[in-house]
This record gives sequence, structure tokens and C-alpha cells, in this order.
Amino acid sequence: MARDALEIRFARAPVQCSVVLRDGLLEQLSRAEIGNAGTSCVIITDDLVARLYGKQLKEKLCGIARTNVITFPHGERSKTLNTVARITAKMSKLGCDRKTILFALGGGVAGDLGGFVASIFKRGIQYFQVPTTLLAMVDSSIGGKTGVDAVWGKNQLGSYYQPDGVFIDPSTLDTLPSSEIINGIAEMAKSGIIADPQLFAKIDSALNNKAIIDGLKPLIFNACKIKAEVVEKDEREANLRSTLNYGHTVGHALESSSGYRLSHGKSVLLGMFCEGWISSKLGLFEAKDYERHSLLLSRIRDRFNVRTPLLDQKKVLRFAFLDKKTSEGSLRMSLPEKIGKMHIAKDGMYTAPVSRELFLESLSQLRQERN
Amino acid sequence: MARDALEIRFARAPVQCSVVLRDGLLEQLSRAEIGNAGTSCVIITDDLVARLYGKQLKEKLCGIARTNVITFPHGERSKTLNTVARITAKMSKLGCDRKTILFALGGGVAGDLGGFVASIFKRGIQYFQVPTTLLAMVDSSIGGKTGVDAVWGKNQLGSYYQPDGVFIDPSTLDTLPSSEIINGIAEMAKSGIIADPQLFAKIDSALNNKAIIDGLKPLIFNACKIKAEVVEKDEREANLRSTLNYGHTVGHALESSSGYRLSHGKSVLLGMFCEGWISSKLGLFEAKDYERHSLLLSRIRDRFNVRTPLLDQKKVLRFAFLDKKTSEGSLRMSLPEKIGKMHIAKDGMYTAPVSRELFLESLSQLRQERN
Repeated sequence: MARDALEIRFARAPVQCSVVLRDGLLEQLSRAEIGNAGTSCVIITDDLVARLYGKQLKEKLCGIARTNVITFPHGERSKTLNTVARITAKMSKLGCDRKTILFALGGGVAGDLGGFVASIFKRGIQYFQVPTTLLAMVDSSIGGKTGVDAVWGKNQLGSYYQPDGVFIDPSTLDTLPSSEIINGIAEMAKSGIIADPQLFAKIDSALNNKAIIDGLKPLIFNACKIKAEVVEKDEREANLRSTLNYGHTVGHALESSSGYRLSHGKSVLLGMFCEGWISSKLGLFEAKDYERHSLLLSRIRDRFNVRTPLLDQKKVLRFAFLDKKTSEGSLRMSLPEKIGKMHIAKDGMYTAPVSRELFLESLSQLRQERN
Repeated sequence: MARDALEIRFARAPVQCSVVLRDGLLEQLSRAEIGNAGTSCVIITDDLVARLYGKQLKEKLCGIARTNVITFPHGERSKTLNTVARITAKMSKLGCDRKTILFALGGGVAGDLGGFVASIFKRGIQYFQVPTTLLAMVDSSIGGKTGVDAVWGKNQLGSYYQPDGVFIDPSTLDTLPSSEIINGIAEMAKSGIIADPQLFAKIDSALNNKAIIDGLKPLIFNACKIKAEVVEKDEREANLRSTLNYGHTVGHALESSSGYRLSHGKSVLLGMFCEGWISSKLGLFEAKDYERHSLLLSRIRDRFNVRTPLLDQKKVLRFAFLDKKTSEGSLRMSLPEKIGKMHIAKDGMYTAPVSRELFLESLSQLRQERN
């Protein structure tokens, strides 16, 4: 009987990603920042951002290498395998090859979609994230999570694929629709809650600004640093990175079950209300900090007029179970102990199991309103 | 003006992949070989292989964890993003999660497709390759290249994603259609030409067998070893791995431009005729070895009755330029110097630029026949 065996060992070099924040950065990009390897550039962005910053970035990059812009219709609905097929076909037609450098320009959708395209086009090309929304700047552009939505759930098809760099130009926020700010501030509040009491306090102060965005701009890099520190230690979400999902287990389920009518930021904000309540109910969240936590969330909710739609709670639960973070049939959540400190279970894990009953009960805490 | 910068460094642990070859292996798989991490198993295979080995593997795995089989229609036409969407939706419906272990059972299509599904389902799950064709055993199951075909070219969307292991059971070759053998033997001949004069000679001898497959079985592990050694040294095809593409620049272009009517093995066989001729024409291939090379290829061609269809040479050239290996508008090929030794250019590269004229001329060397 034939019997043979061998082991193949694949060495892995560490991967570097630089995050650069500078006012006017899009006007100043140089070859030094992009590197010398690329034969051409391609900018992936949505139709709206293309008009605002696509041309500007293209002109800048054209000074470095041949550059094309490929657009997709704005909105989460574009985040599908079909769009990936369309964009990659276009790239092929434009002569993109394995040394083309991709720029994912725009919000979370452009980043997730562009990053995913970069990860699978000819088995992977170099790319940069160029976030133009607050959400993308403080959260989704950093950490290398890429992907698209499947009909059966959000972000279910994707990869871990690190960009070579993240270029943040806060001046692009001047054109950000005010309805978009909630998406960023929810993640910034989350960052404060999970790791940075000072950031938490500063967000509270920023809410006093008449133009909130001006209060938030100086805090962007703080939020980036938290994200960077967490993903550097635990890229693949073995443990610590799950703290970044605070508010997201309930949040994603709310978002999906609403057919994405509820925005990401609003969903996560409501999700933090629920998950904070769960943490308090489990006796993990210190009472005083829970109070401060919910007070800030309430201020944000009121300032941005976030309303909870009428919920089909069982449906929300079903969507929660479709989420990637569920495993072996149980829901697990990362829960706060204090502002700036997440709970670590006795087994060293940052997530704790949460019963279906508690999940459902937490939804009942939200003041549901008919639209 | 705000200006901030930070560097994120992602450490990377080495990745291991074991290749195990054993007669009757499918009947003997144990938890020790699969590991303990999985919560459930899913087998991805085509309708034909499902009938032959799907049930058998499922029964074996069911003794270890809950196992489902998902099938797709056999053939290269299934290797699309649409099939990926369908398979992953089915996986979700069956309750697969991040700890599900995927088994890509079958030939090259199942391996490429199954591996790609594993690489993007919930951003990546563990998987094993279980090749049941000669081609998949000696070539495509090893090295972590996964992917699907795009409308604009073969294997253009994919990833590098290593399986935890490759399980080869040569007894599954007993049901291999004889028309499939050419696909494997072409790659085995290639392995001999690029790295192993002994393997080359043994394939020559194997052709004397009445049942060629019996002569080839003892050579499978030799071919696996060559593939393993090459990909271990150069997983991402920075240089050495390009030697594995011998015959494939022309071969893929023939295959694509025929609308995949010409099989992979036949295409690569014809591709090696052309690329060997180019190498000889460039004065790289030693005359005596070029003669032996072409003699073995001719023996294989005649034994398997491989005919060159009438070619639209310009169309073939266009498809060659769509190939991933083209870069900066020039065709590059890895070319032999001797049997078992590939040419290294002065710059240390295993690929050399080949002009359009030489490419077209090499196609003229093939005896084209009307079908």
C-alpha cells in the first residue's frame, strides 16, 4: 500500500500599513507615499464621491502613473459580488495588471468593496484606502477587513487584506452630508467606551459644538490609534479585536433585519444601548459608568434624532444568529466593565455568551416608534 | 494644519500544509488528520464526483462532526462568482460558521472553487483539498492558488489561500475517465521538464504501459514533491514559481480562445510544444534536450490523440495578453535550458520577455487540423 507524506511550510513576512492624516493630503500625494512598484493606478469610488474627489485624486495620481476611475452607484446595495464582477471586468478592459495600484476612495462601501476587489483581482494587487467619510476614517479603512454583502447577511463574503496605507484628508469631511455624521460618531463613541475614557469625554464635549463635525475632526486620529492598536495585536479577531464589535452584534442584526433601511451608525448606537444594558444586567458594567455610557448615547441619539423602528424581535434574533460572530449556536458579545475597559472572562476571552432571552429583552429596552 | 502618521505592523505566523498520499485514504480519515477545531464539515464537489465519492467521504466525516455535501454541475463552466454565491448561500442555510471545515473534493474545478469559497466565506475558514483527478493530485491541489474564471479570462479572480492539508487517495483514479488522464500527464511531464530528469524518464517508460494510469500512479508523489518544493520557496510567484507555468502562457491562451473546448491538459501540452520551440529558437534550450522534450510530448500527443484546432492566431495572442503573467504590456515566459533545469536570466529572473512575433510564430509550428 502506497503511503507518503510531506509537510510544506510557508513563511510569512510581516505586513506594514501606514496611516497618514493631513489636511489637504489628496492635493499633495507624492510618489514617495505610494511607492515605486505600480505600473498604473485605478480609483474605485461611487458616483457621488467621484464627482467630489475622483477627478482631483485622478489628476494627482496621473502625475505618477496612468490612472483610471471606475465608479459604482452609491449605497450599500452596490456591495455585492455582481458589482465585483462588473468592476473587475472594467479593470481588465482598462489594462489593469498585477502591478496596478488600487485606491478605494469614499466611505465604508467603497473601502470594503475596493479592498475586496484588490484582494481577488488576479489573486491580489496592492491598494490604498482613501476614506472620505467620518465612519471610514475612524473605523472601516483601518484593519484590512474587506468584503461584500450576501443576500443572506451583511459582510459575509470577504477577506483580511491589508492596504499598504490609509490616506486621511479631513478636509473632505466638509462635503459630508450631516446625515452621515452619526455613522462616524457612533464608532468614535464605541472606541471611547472600549478603550479610551478621554476620547469618550471629548466626544461629549464635541456635542456642544454647533457644527459637530468641527468638534470631531481633532478626535479622528485618536480613534484611528485605538483601531490600529487593536488590529495590530489581533488582526484575525481571535480575541481582542472582538471588542471593536461592541454594539455590533445587536447593531448588525437591527441593520440587516431592517433591510438596511436603518443606517449603520444608528444601528450601532441602538446596539450599544442594548449591549450596555445586557452588560449591566449581567452585573459586569459598573453602575456609574453604565449611566455615563447611556447618557452620552442618549445625547447622540437626541442630537441626531435617532428613532427605533418597530421591531420584529424574533426576526432580529434570527439575523443575529446569521452573523459571523455566532459560533456553535450561541451568541457571544464583548461587553464593557467601565468606560475604556472591556470585560475579560475567566478564560481570558473578551466575549461572553449571551442567552436568546437576554438578547430579546434588551431589544425591549429600546423605545420603539412607528415611523 | 493637522498632520499625523502611524505605522501598523501585522506579524504573520508561518502556515503549514501537509500532503498525505495513501491508497484507501478516503476510507480511513480520522480526527487526528483533520484536527480538533471544527464544529462541522462541508464537502464541496461536483454532481459526478458526489455520486462516486461524496457519500463515502461524508460518511467518514460524519463520524467526526456534522457533515453536509454541496454539489455544483461538473465542468469548468461552474467556476464562476455565481456558483460561489450559490454555494455560500447554501452553506449559510446549512448553518456553516467560521469553524466549519470545508473539503474541496474532486478535480481542479472543485479545488479552485472550493478553495476560493473557503477563502472568502465569513472572511476565511479552514479547508482541505481532496483531489480525485490526476491533474488535481499532481498539481492544482497543492500551492494554495484558488479562484474562479471571469468572463474576460480564466482564473482571474481568486486568492492565495493554503489548505490545512491535501489528502490524496490514488484508488479514486480507478474511476477517472481515460480522457482525463491527459490533463494530469501534461502537468507531470511539465514537472519533469522543469525540475526532475528522472521523473521525465519515468513518464516516458510509463507510456509503454497498456493501462497508462498504472504506470503513472507510482509517480504521483514525485510530482507532488516538485510542486511542494517550488511553492514552499516562492508561494506568491515572485520568481521561481513561474517555472510551474511552463507551457501555460501559450496553453492558457489556447484554452481561453477556444472557449475552453480544448482541455487544460491538451492546451498545456500544445503550449509546451510552442514554448519549447521558443526556448530553442532563442538559443536557450540545449538541442539534444529539446529533441528529447519534443519526442516525449509527441508520444503523449499521439497516445492521447491530441489535435490542434484551426487557430485564430491574433485572438490567441489577445488572450495571452489578458493573462495574469503579462505585465507592462510584455509577454514573459519561463523557458527550459535542459530537461530538469529552467533558464535563469542575468537579472536572476526565471522569466524572459518573448516578442509577439515569436509567440505568433510558435503557434505556426503546431500542425493545425480542421476538426
